[in-house]
Amino acid sequence: MLDVVTSANVACGFHAGDSLTLQRTCARAVERSVVIGAQVGYRDLVGFGRRFVDMDPDELTADVIYQVGALEMLARVAGGHVAYVKPHGALYNAIAHHEEQAEAVVRAVVAIDPDLPVLGLPGSVFLRRAEAAGLRTVVEAFADRAYTPEGTLVPRGAPGAVLHDPTEVAARMVRLVTEQRVTAVDGTDIEVQAESICTHGDSPGAVEMARAVRAALTGAGVEIAPFTA
Amino acid sequence: MLDVVTSANVACGFHAGDSLTLQRTCARAVERSVVIGAQVGYRDLVGFGRRFVDMDPDELTADVIYQVGALEMLARVAGGHVAYVKPHGALYNAIAHHEEQAEAVVRAVVAIDPDLPVLGLPGSVFLRRAEAAGLRTVVEAFADRAYTPEGTLVPRGAPGAVLHDPTEVAARMVRLVTEQRVTAVDGTDIEVQAESICTHGDSPGAVEMARAVRAALTGAGVEIAPFTA
Amino acid sequence: MLDVVTSANVACGFHAGDSLTLQRTCARAVERSVVIGAQVGYRDLVGFGRRFVDMDPDELTADVIYQVGALEMLARVAGGHVAYVKPHGALYNAIAHHEEQAEAVVRAVVAIDPDLPVLGLPGSVFLRRAEAAGLRTVVEAFADRAYTPEGTLVPRGAPGAVLHDPTEVAARMVRLVTEQRVTAVDGTDIEVQAESICTHGDSPGAVEMARAVRAALTGAGVEIAPFTA
Amino acid sequence: MLDVVTSANVACGFHAGDSLTLQRTCARAVERSVVIGAQVGYRDLVGFGRRFVDMDPDELTADVIYQVGALEMLARVAGGHVAYVKPHGALYNAIAHHEEQAEAVVRAVVAIDPDLPVLGLPGSVFLRRAEAAGLRTVVEAFADRAYTPEGTLVPRGAPGAVLHDPTEVAARMVRLVTEQRVTAVDGTDIEVQAESICTHGDSPGAVEMARAVRAALTGAGVEIAPFTA
Repeated sequence: MLDVVTSANVACGFHAGDSLTLQRTCARAVERSVVIGAQVGYRDLVGFGRRFVDMDPDELTADVIYQVGALEMLARVAGGHVAYVKPHGALYNAIAHHEEQAEAVVRAVVAIDPDLPVLGLPGSVFLRRAEAAGLRTVVEAFADRAYTPEGTLVPRGAPGAVLHDPTEVAARMVRLVTEQRVTAVDGTDIEVQAESICTHGDSPGAVEMARAVRAALTGAGVEIAPFTA
Repeated sequence: MLDVVTSANVACGFHAGDSLTLQRTCARAVERSVVIGAQVGYRDLVGFGRRFVDMDPDELTADVIYQVGALEMLARVAGGHVAYVKPHGALYNAIAHHEEQAEAVVRAVVAIDPDLPVLGLPGSVFLRRAEAAGLRTVVEAFADRAYTPEGTLVPRGAPGAVLHDPTEVAARMVRLVTEQRVTAVDGTDIEVQAESICTHGDSPGAVEMARAVRAALTGAGVEIAPFTA
Repeated sequence: MLDVVTSANVACGFHAGDSLTLQRTCARAVERSVVIGAQVGYRDLVGFGRRFVDMDPDELTADVIYQVGALEMLARVAGGHVAYVKPHGALYNAIAHHEEQAEAVVRAVVAIDPDLPVLGLPGSVFLRRAEAAGLRTVVEAFADRAYTPEGTLVPRGAPGAVLHDPTEVAARMVRLVTEQRVTAVDGTDIEVQAESICTHGDSPGAVEMARAVRAALTGAGVEIAPFTA
Repeated sequence: MLDVVTSANVACGFHAGDSLTLQRTCARAVERSVVIGAQVGYRDLVGFGRRFVDMDPDELTADVIYQVGALEMLARVAGGHVAYVKPHGALYNAIAHHEEQAEAVVRAVVAIDPDLPVLGLPGSVFLRRAEAAGLRTVVEAFADRAYTPEGTLVPRGAPGAVLHDPTEVAARMVRLVTEQRVTAVDGTDIEVQAESICTHGDSPGAVEMARAVRAALTGAGVEIAPFTA
């Protein structure tokens, strides 16, 4: 997978990942000049970070600092560094609207390094507050996920939420990048702005899909580069 | 306690400590100009890191890097930094003799920062290997623990292993610092060299004991300073 | 503490408690003829089960079955058994109003044993659904917690939420038991019905408070017995 | 997989398995009349129970009781029950020779139910002590693992430790069952007695291998039945 992407969201051990696997992932990313992002989540190994935890914002801030610090040291030992922060799973979804938790994550990133960019959902409270705090924000699109007419993701578990056909996905992404438009789950045509395209590494056929998207984008004349260059 | 000591061994979340408590401990240490040490241990919250885990050395190296990285970021956000590394509990005891694990911890510290000192038991494999790798090593004595005639600690659980009388402990430490001698558990007199004196923060009467030791040492004309000054 | 109470809520390892401590607590309870209750919670050791987790109801049902099963076997080996189920911390508070999670806990208890009583807050969704499912429900009062004028607990963290004076607490409980009335945090007088009085075992002065309550109740002619006799 | 085997070793949540997955595995086993065994291990989710933990024997006894109790309740709710106990991973290997830990597991099983059989390695301290304690012991062979000339398993990680060819594995098992002989890793022919054949469910091609073994055994006239019938 790391041969295909330009940035890798690496888990930080709270929702997945033992230290050695994280270290090796960082080393492989560095070898391939793939940019490393810290994927921070709730402390929930058993639930893979997919369950909202109603934490005290100060606890969340400390948990984000802890996770980014751990990955940063593993990355540094591997010759790289954490180039951006991307919340994972239930945290990602929660801070699209949860004001206190969004602010808690922003506070953590500002405390770590005010030059560290954050990735998030377009229109989310998280990106709005990150911008207000002076952070560089990067809007991302999801290659293998369906969109609602309002431009949010169809929730996992709902019918048609996850797309599986590499050709269809690749064509969607070319259109998204060149026309800023995509077809929503109800067939309507919506506008989606994105600087980054996220594809999942843990689903069957993940590498094929990433390859298809990359090939299609390159074929369409799109230059692919890490946003943190 | 942080008003009495010059260095604080702060847990890193594997054997104890949620992120917020660690962050606040770092902040309080910084306020009082107390030096912060990373107390790294086995991943064993339930057993408080007091049980040996027969890990692959590469896993252990990665776990140490992860823990120091996490605490370093929390410390940095609090205006401080990790000034030394001290293994905890079963890891501390294991690497007194376990060659591969001792080497694994040394490798981690060298990879993090070859100028980072390590604390350990006199005569331990860990300190020997750390020295061979060019690390600064700091030998420590334990204020509230009994010594065997061979100069090692009487194991926790054995009768008389832990000392409770602040006056006795303070007198022992004055003698240890000024004469490099201490009375072993069998009544014999042994030589103990130490640059640092460790006292525990989690036992009843811990603060009183630390105060008594500090007062006695100061009274005896000993200058107390962090070894990382 | 086990010398003072008639029932003990024993944690099940998800929010607190290693297996050996649980086993020994069960053994001590059996020795003193203290009834054992399973205190089930969210899987959150670091947060002591005090943080709401937005779990799938089926996951919650399975987690409750798992916890009660584990404690039941430890209790059985100690010569006792789990005599009731009491949700802990954030789970306790959540199922006072969260319909799906309340139902999930009820489903678990019914599946384990439809004769197993459950403890809860008066007026809670949990007790209402438990009753509808045919479970025996036991309403409990909290000795050391202040009440709102509406009869719910003043949230931990709010001023005056936790009471510390054993004499005051004991007098409140005598009035609660004999008159079914208690003074709320705003000074108004409210009605509180309760079959069981809960006192915490992990706060300083906990044993003294429990003793004071027991003595005052006995002195007032109240007979204290486990509700599961 | 559950369509092919007669007994399933189900994890108990310490080295793998969230409660809901365990409950569903029990339910599927019951549907297919597959016997459920409790696979108990060290509390090591991150290391999948593959690392030896030097626990106090009393802690280990309590951990085994806890795990079997949890799975027993999940199995009972699913209409089944735990029919035997099989230690997992590093615990399995440790108690082949570690006297105190072997005894600790035996003590746990005797306390749970003296009629509960245990599975183990031929010649292990564990089976010897289990027999001495009056437990029914079941010797097992491993379909997809190579044997040393001494009849123990070639350690994972050593070359040739794991076998991948279903045809070869099936032929080995037919010979093991009908002749009690198998070819060791050095080419010598050794005697292996076994009442149960273990095959792993988590490796690629696992189902195919199990099917091949079952078909070959049935084709050779061997009757396959759960040993706990």
